[in-house]
Amino acid sequence: MEIAHSLQQTRSSYIREILSAAADKNVISLAGGLPDEQTFPTELMKPTLEKLTQMPEVFQYGSTAGYDPLLDYLRDAYQLPDTHTAMICTGSQQGLDLIARAYFNPQDTIAMEAPSYLGAMQVFGLVQANIVTVPQTDAGPDIEALELCFRQQAPKAFYAVPDFHNPTGVCWTLEIRQQVAALCIRYNVVMIEDAPYRELRFNGEALPLVSDFCPEHSIVLRSFSKIASPGLRMGVVTGKRSYLEPLIKVKQGADLHSSVPMQALLLGLLQHPDFDQHLDSIRTLYQTRYHRLYTELCQQLPEGCTVKPIDGGMFVWLSLPDCDTFALAESMLAKGVAVVPSPVFYPNAEATPAALRLNFTNANPDELTEAVKRLVEGLKSYLN
Amino acid sequence: MEIAHSLQQTRSSYIREILSAAADKNVISLAGGLPDEQTFPTELMKPTLEKLTQMPEVFQYGSTAGYDPLLDYLRDAYQLPDTHTAMICTGSQQGLDLIARAYFNPQDTIAMEAPSYLGAMQVFGLVQANIVTVPQTDAGPDIEALELCFRQQAPKAFYAVPDFHNPTGVCWTLEIRQQVAALCIRYNVVMIEDAPYRELRFNGEALPLVSDFCPEHSIVLRSFSKIASPGLRMGVVTGKRSYLEPLIKVKQGADLHSSVPMQALLLGLLQHPDFDQHLDSIRTLYQTRYHRLYTELCQQLPEGCTVKPIDGGMFVWLSLPDCDTFALAESMLAKGVAVVPSPVFYPNAEATPAALRLNFTNANPDELTEAVKRLVEGLKSYLN
Repeated sequence: MEIAHSLQQTRSSYIREILSAAADKNVISLAGGLPDEQTFPTELMKPTLEKLTQMPEVFQYGSTAGYDPLLDYLRDAYQLPDTHTAMICTGSQQGLDLIARAYFNPQDTIAMEAPSYLGAMQVFGLVQANIVTVPQTDAGPDIEALELCFRQQAPKAFYAVPDFHNPTGVCWTLEIRQQVAALCIRYNVVMIEDAPYRELRFNGEALPLVSDFCPEHSIVLRSFSKIASPGLRMGVVTGKRSYLEPLIKVKQGADLHSSVPMQALLLGLLQHPDFDQHLDSIRTLYQTRYHRLYTELCQQLPEGCTVKPIDGGMFVWLSLPDCDTFALAESMLAKGVAVVPSPVFYPNAEATPAALRLNFTNANPDELTEAVKRLVEGLKSYLN
Repeated sequence: MEIAHSLQQTRSSYIREILSAAADKNVISLAGGLPDEQTFPTELMKPTLEKLTQMPEVFQYGSTAGYDPLLDYLRDAYQLPDTHTAMICTGSQQGLDLIARAYFNPQDTIAMEAPSYLGAMQVFGLVQANIVTVPQTDAGPDIEALELCFRQQAPKAFYAVPDFHNPTGVCWTLEIRQQVAALCIRYNVVMIEDAPYRELRFNGEALPLVSDFCPEHSIVLRSFSKIASPGLRMGVVTGKRSYLEPLIKVKQGADLHSSVPMQALLLGLLQHPDFDQHLDSIRTLYQTRYHRLYTELCQQLPEGCTVKPIDGGMFVWLSLPDCDTFALAESMLAKGVAVVPSPVFYPNAEATPAALRLNFTNANPDELTEAVKRLVEGLKSYLN
């Protein structure tokens, strides 16, 4: 049976390959995007897990939009107006996939920053959308380029990760958030705001969502993978009811609904009196790790290599002199450290700036020190 | 944001509407396809639920294909050859959706029996496949019509529910199974065998899967919704590795993987020493209910209305003299009984045989007796 045309155009996932190589226990992996297993709040889950068997309703078919008590909780927590609603999905990745399927015909245009989240490129690629990009600055997307893109290409939507971007770690400034929202309103472009790392801020004050400035022109995706557990596969999409109805229609065909016991478990967790303390402890843990990685890099990086400080999230972006980053990543793997080369984060992999994405959440400080040692050795021998 | 063309063509779900009307507590619903909540094996789940918090690995990101210990168990249970493999999905509905997305371009042809499962028509509709149908007899699909269809229309695949079909309850005979498999091989058509009701046989001996006769030309979908719990959203797809690889690729974009704690819970359940006994108790319960419904119908149905006996599953199919079954179902709802009219189970709703689908698993015997009373009253007043 021949596969569909849409699938023939997807690139094989380099990340998958490198992740499987990184599973070797002699390799320290900075390649993935995994939270640390020790952060999973299993103790806080216990009370709900013990109650589940007395809740037969969570084992029955549920509503496509989600488990009502959880939806009520989230609508309240996010202070959604009556015009807006929420839909639970099987990880926020599913939310993205449903948006792509519900709204994008082949050749419809979606705008993104470059570099961008791989999983977003994947789902918009599957529906054969036309992905156009604007460059990213340290403050967020290049606003002039974005306006030009909106004016000339008339994208249906602009997909972005404004809080601690994957892969660069960039957090948009308040000014940029307001400007992007204004452009979305002016050009009638829907802001698809993906916020999986938003709660992982370990420095400075939280900024409003971009969508707070354009609530009628936005869809927000939130994930519980980084703050609770990725294994649960729990995400939530919020936006105007009219925006969400088509997503619910596609989701009905896609999986009917997401696991109800997992939704009940998530609700119990969010309502647990110690959940805020759990969030604090994750932030502190990741800040310590980031600090170790960043400090070691600053002290040891050879000339021409730069790393920018970040205020949260899971990644730092290491800019390099022009080179073949795939070959470099491969040579580093041989030295026992796994990293992800920049071209995989661009829809068009040719002529992309040389860089590496480094994750710091799933290795302890001593491993990070050792990883930097191997990485710097690899860089020096490759760049000379 | 305008919705995608593919979505504009989907019909609004009548079943959803009738299910929401059926939630009225004065209505006895024979409309849904829900297992009885009292059958959920929550006691057998307890040991695993209590162990979950000591299994941090199930809260981490998992493999797209599924949780390895569960995959190992299922490959062994289904005695898959080395050339074949299994993939866990978020309910078997997701398996169907992934097959449609991985293999079907707009206008590619999929064959089905008529009537057919609504959720299958939905996902093949979403990819804008060309759905062609062959009539169903009491023994399975009309073989001559099927061969003609394969020869003239060259479908990529044939989708069917050979065990206790939804909506008709028909179980294919051994001979038909062999003939269909032979046709799939001869015409190089992939058999997509959907088997959610297979374990719900309460009369006679289990027959081989159709796919047992054409293992190189088939994909099998199994569900744990009817024998464990639908809320878990657990299904499994099996087939040749080369058939499953594209599905795994699409699933990576669709939701990365299905909930791992739910997969661990399912494994614990399947391995529980009392699980077989649990299956027996479900079968006995449903047999009793079916028997009540069938007996009452046989005694009371007006002339021209017929119901065929079944050997398992969740549905019986009530054939009627030609009439507007939508109007009939609506008048029955006013009398306090919810049923589903036949046209919703046909891709082309015009000129379909008049019938009603009746579910017997989610009402107790007394309710079934009362439901038949209301239904027969409704029939008599409508048909006169």
